[in-house]
Amino acid sequence: MNIESQLKDKRFEKQIKFLIEIDKIKNVIRKTRNFYNKKYENDAEHGWHLCMFALILSEYSNEPIDLFKVIKMALIHDIVEIDAGDVIVYAIDEKEKRDKEKKAAERIFGILPDDQKAECISLWEEFETRETAEAKFAHSIDRLEPVLQNYLDDGYTWKKHGITSDKVIKVNKKIENGSKTLWNFVRGLIEDFVQKGIL
Amino acid sequence: MNIESQLKDKRFEKQIKFLIEIDKIKNVIRKTRNFYNKKYENDAEHGWHLCMFALILSEYSNEPIDLFKVIKMALIHDIVEIDAGDVIVYAIDEKEKRDKEKKAAERIFGILPDDQKAECISLWEEFETRETAEAKFAHSIDRLEPVLQNYLDDGYTWKKHGITSDKVIKVNKKIENGSKTLWNFVRGLIEDFVQKGIL
Repeated sequence: MNIESQLKDKRFEKQIKFLIEIDKIKNVIRKTRNFYNKKYENDAEHGWHLCMFALILSEYSNEPIDLFKVIKMALIHDIVEIDAGDVIVYAIDEKEKRDKEKKAAERIFGILPDDQKAECISLWEEFETRETAEAKFAHSIDRLEPVLQNYLDDGYTWKKHGITSDKVIKVNKKIENGSKTLWNFVRGLIEDFVQKGIL
Repeated sequence: MNIESQLKDKRFEKQIKFLIEIDKIKNVIRKTRNFYNKKYENDAEHGWHLCMFALILSEYSNEPIDLFKVIKMALIHDIVEIDAGDVIVYAIDEKEKRDKEKKAAERIFGILPDDQKAECISLWEEFETRETAEAKFAHSIDRLEPVLQNYLDDGYTWKKHGITSDKVIKVNKKIENGSKTLWNFVRGLIEDFVQKGIL
């Protein structure tokens, strides 16, 4: 069914087209599996769950945060993966990832009216740069979720990709920048796995 | 893997258990299909997409709104469906639905610490009561998404369940309470379908 004929206002047309385009995020499959159904999580499910992590765990941020901003970051941070794909965090070529994602941000957020494009790109860049309190906390929960998924899945992804405990610690230690409490919890999970010989 | 031994703080334990429990929302399957992959949408995907509708379309609310509150409603409004299930909006026993969902809200939000339980239940009840500007707008976009999905899916769900145009108009006219602009758009889509003999 063609939507064009029903979109008479240019600004509204751009907004609706964007909202349809980003539906593709439901096809971006992550490397970890959901807690219950053990299907690989997709980026839309992850986005929703991450917002809930933010809503419930915000009190553990090291610094005071604008929670709404964290949630906006959680909502939009993976939209670039529609074009750039999801790559496992333990084996990333940072430069290549960054270039692909920049192009993706331009194309996808570029569907929006200019003011909304600018807001989304600014939020996404703030998230990626990890300098503000909001970006640091958003990254902390963005790491906490897959660690928890792995922990409750007998280390499924870690074993599958042969990830060592050193690497798990190195990548996830960044959680500390946003939340010391959440990092202490994650460190405990990793140590438990090392003791049990899983990692 | 047992998480109990790693949760030493009672408040934190409740929060993490809630965040794991609500993962079940990814198994609640809706009646409409995603725009692109044509899979039935699940409630987590719907929650994410709805937040994006709120973020991008908030300027069309009839009344000024606290957008963060709308987004919180969008995030949590379907959690009750983990226990109560998703029912097609065109054939609802309102009283039965309401009773089931109330019980579900008590059980699921009851996993949280008391203050967070109270906040979630209050948000969910505000959404359900449809009296505030935020609740009205949240309902408008909660209806807009499945109408758009049906429109771009040749009326798939409507045809499958034998829904008439009268019923589609009756149920969706409530969009007007939150946004006249969005209702005008939706009315156009429905009229187009009637003209084409699809509805």
